[in-house]
Amino acid sequence: MATINANYNKLSAGYLFPEIARRTGAYLDDHPDVHVMRLGIGNTTEPLPPSVIRYLHQAVDNLAAVDTYTGYANGSEGNLDLREAIAGRYAERGVTLDPDEIFVSDGGKPDSANIQSIFGLDNVVAVQDPAYPVYVDSNVIAGRTGKSEAGQYEGIVYMPCTEANGFFPELPADKVDLIYICSPNNPIGSVATASQLQTFVDYAREHRAVIIFDAAYCAYISDPKLPHSIFEVDGASSCAIEINSFSKDTGFTGVRLGWTVVPRELAVEDAGSGVVNGLWRRRQNTMFNGASNIVQGGGLAVFTEAGKAECAAMVAYYMANAARIRSGLERMGLTVYGGVHAPYLWMKTPGGMGSWEFFDKLLSEARVVGTPGAGFGPSGEGFFRLSAFGHREDIESAVESIERNLRL
Amino acid sequence: MATINANYNKLSAGYLFPEIARRTGAYLDDHPDVHVMRLGIGNTTEPLPPSVIRYLHQAVDNLAAVDTYTGYANGSEGNLDLREAIAGRYAERGVTLDPDEIFVSDGGKPDSANIQSIFGLDNVVAVQDPAYPVYVDSNVIAGRTGKSEAGQYEGIVYMPCTEANGFFPELPADKVDLIYICSPNNPIGSVATASQLQTFVDYAREHRAVIIFDAAYCAYISDPKLPHSIFEVDGASSCAIEINSFSKDTGFTGVRLGWTVVPRELAVEDAGSGVVNGLWRRRQNTMFNGASNIVQGGGLAVFTEAGKAECAAMVAYYMANAARIRSGLERMGLTVYGGVHAPYLWMKTPGGMGSWEFFDKLLSEARVVGTPGAGFGPSGEGFFRLSAFGHREDIESAVESIERNLRL
Repeated sequence: MATINANYNKLSAGYLFPEIARRTGAYLDDHPDVHVMRLGIGNTTEPLPPSVIRYLHQAVDNLAAVDTYTGYANGSEGNLDLREAIAGRYAERGVTLDPDEIFVSDGGKPDSANIQSIFGLDNVVAVQDPAYPVYVDSNVIAGRTGKSEAGQYEGIVYMPCTEANGFFPELPADKVDLIYICSPNNPIGSVATASQLQTFVDYAREHRAVIIFDAAYCAYISDPKLPHSIFEVDGASSCAIEINSFSKDTGFTGVRLGWTVVPRELAVEDAGSGVVNGLWRRRQNTMFNGASNIVQGGGLAVFTEAGKAECAAMVAYYMANAARIRSGLERMGLTVYGGVHAPYLWMKTPGGMGSWEFFDKLLSEARVVGTPGAGFGPSGEGFFRLSAFGHREDIESAVESIERNLRL
Repeated sequence: MATINANYNKLSAGYLFPEIARRTGAYLDDHPDVHVMRLGIGNTTEPLPPSVIRYLHQAVDNLAAVDTYTGYANGSEGNLDLREAIAGRYAERGVTLDPDEIFVSDGGKPDSANIQSIFGLDNVVAVQDPAYPVYVDSNVIAGRTGKSEAGQYEGIVYMPCTEANGFFPELPADKVDLIYICSPNNPIGSVATASQLQTFVDYAREHRAVIIFDAAYCAYISDPKLPHSIFEVDGASSCAIEINSFSKDTGFTGVRLGWTVVPRELAVEDAGSGVVNGLWRRRQNTMFNGASNIVQGGGLAVFTEAGKAECAAMVAYYMANAARIRSGLERMGLTVYGGVHAPYLWMKTPGGMGSWEFFDKLLSEARVVGTPGAGFGPSGEGFFRLSAFGHREDIESAVESIERNLRL
């Protein structure tokens, strides 16, 4: 008699974004003539850069001819030319990586979710609070937690990111084994300094913990002196894994491409150098079959001079949106963080309102969809995430509607 | 102190195909001037059909324009038009599915590997022996097995597929919970009849077991009366999940597209109708982010009249290869199965030779790479898989080289 993985029963409600879609849909069912403006999910809206389009067409044409057609690659780690190009980007910031340490994938989300599976179930997981829900949910499904109570799962160590600590957590008081850090941070929009990251790298080296570093938004860092990769921090290669994505700076949210770096130097309690790198290789070769060859071909364009400039222009476009949202909200007297090194703004809900309550208020009064901070963890309560992804005119309309219609 | 998932230590050697690549590479290092012919991995070689190429270009162009650009979809289940087209294909064979029962993915391999994760760790797994290695390895990694001994993992129920039983297994003697069945079969190349499948569906309904049915090769069935889907068998909707792929009939091995059907009617011991469907939805929404929108756009071409004809021609091409391999080997007096309803041939090794020993012999004498049967499970020992994927002239050369050079 087959039984289900009962860990799924521990998951609270639906995954955040489907839940937002459900509430928005219900509102639209009741108000069919209303136009809703979306500053919710971090979904890109602008067309792909011309260089990328050219490379994608070329990759399609390669599959039309017998001499250039390709099927499965030998392994699922991605094409060597793409991994070399990614290594080249790290080299520009002084980080030396071997292509064998880089694993191309179908995106940062699956890698963020699956990376925990190469570690033991008794590892204690620490997350920034608030955090991207996938870090926690994937560990709940794997069975590393107890039940959820008041938005917290038993067994997870939540590291609050609050106004008081400048939205970067203190080191955990108790020993933890796997530490998820996201910088630039989703949902807060803050960015970690080198010295902040160094405290965690030092902790991880001392306790043989592993940092899982999500750098998906690094292209949005406006100050080149801030770290774009955890490997810019001394000693990180022996204790950190880094996940990155083509979603946000190339517009590949629907196209699907990302990568994960597992340094060969990385060692843990029961496995020396090279073993964790080999485990991820084995995991990907068994459970995955490589990113689409068309998409990998398109991704190469990003590393050309033209592609770099086009992607930078796309990032600048979204960051101008962020500035517009921030200035509009600040004019209303609202307190807003983020939006300088990241495409997300993190606003305090007015009057300490609950964040799902503010979601409903913003939707019904201003017809704008955002993301309740509580959806990202208990310390997100009282905050609200606004995304700068959108067409300029839609962002303008949304901000104007908030300014005109939101009753403070 | 972080620790690894120690289940990985139970896995024997490398994943089969990387191991083959390693041995082949070692041979080529020693014989740099030798041209090796590959009848090993089931990798497509012929260019994509023209209709698919057109649709892929259109999907790329859609991403170049602001009005047609798409990012993340609302859920990760795939575009509705594609799921409706897939449902339409089932309807042609009398199977009624709702698009909500169809989950588009980046291929049959990841789905085959991940499907076990929605079930409890105490479920007893049964596999055909031999079988596609991913079924077993994914369950080893999840922790459903003990150690491996003599090619068998403790805790897995192996259902031998032998000459004596016509390569379709008897029902397991002991109670099992998750049953993997692949038809047309990889690696054997055999196909199950409706009455054979009915025995397993009846068993599953009686014991509330779940059949995980891999139909990735159904386009290769040459007799339309044979079942292309397990849902053609009475009662299967209450006890079966089906996995399928665009890899083998559309040439999408490197492009990545597949789907899984989880009927709403499916129920297990601790979860009624709809729950398992919802678990897979939740799994995919948490751990995956949808197949590439470009690839989904290309996949739609397969369901047009022109696309259907082009894919059928591709299948016919590979099947003519299979016939050529089979007749050549039979002329040498070898015993060969399969290759009629599947692109794989399953030959007995001459003189009862070990299958890895025959791998080395075939490589060194005939310079042909195949796949040792033992790599697919203990009952594969004494057999050898040859794949019909390849250019016609390469297949001809390989068969001629075997005929001329293999010393029997």
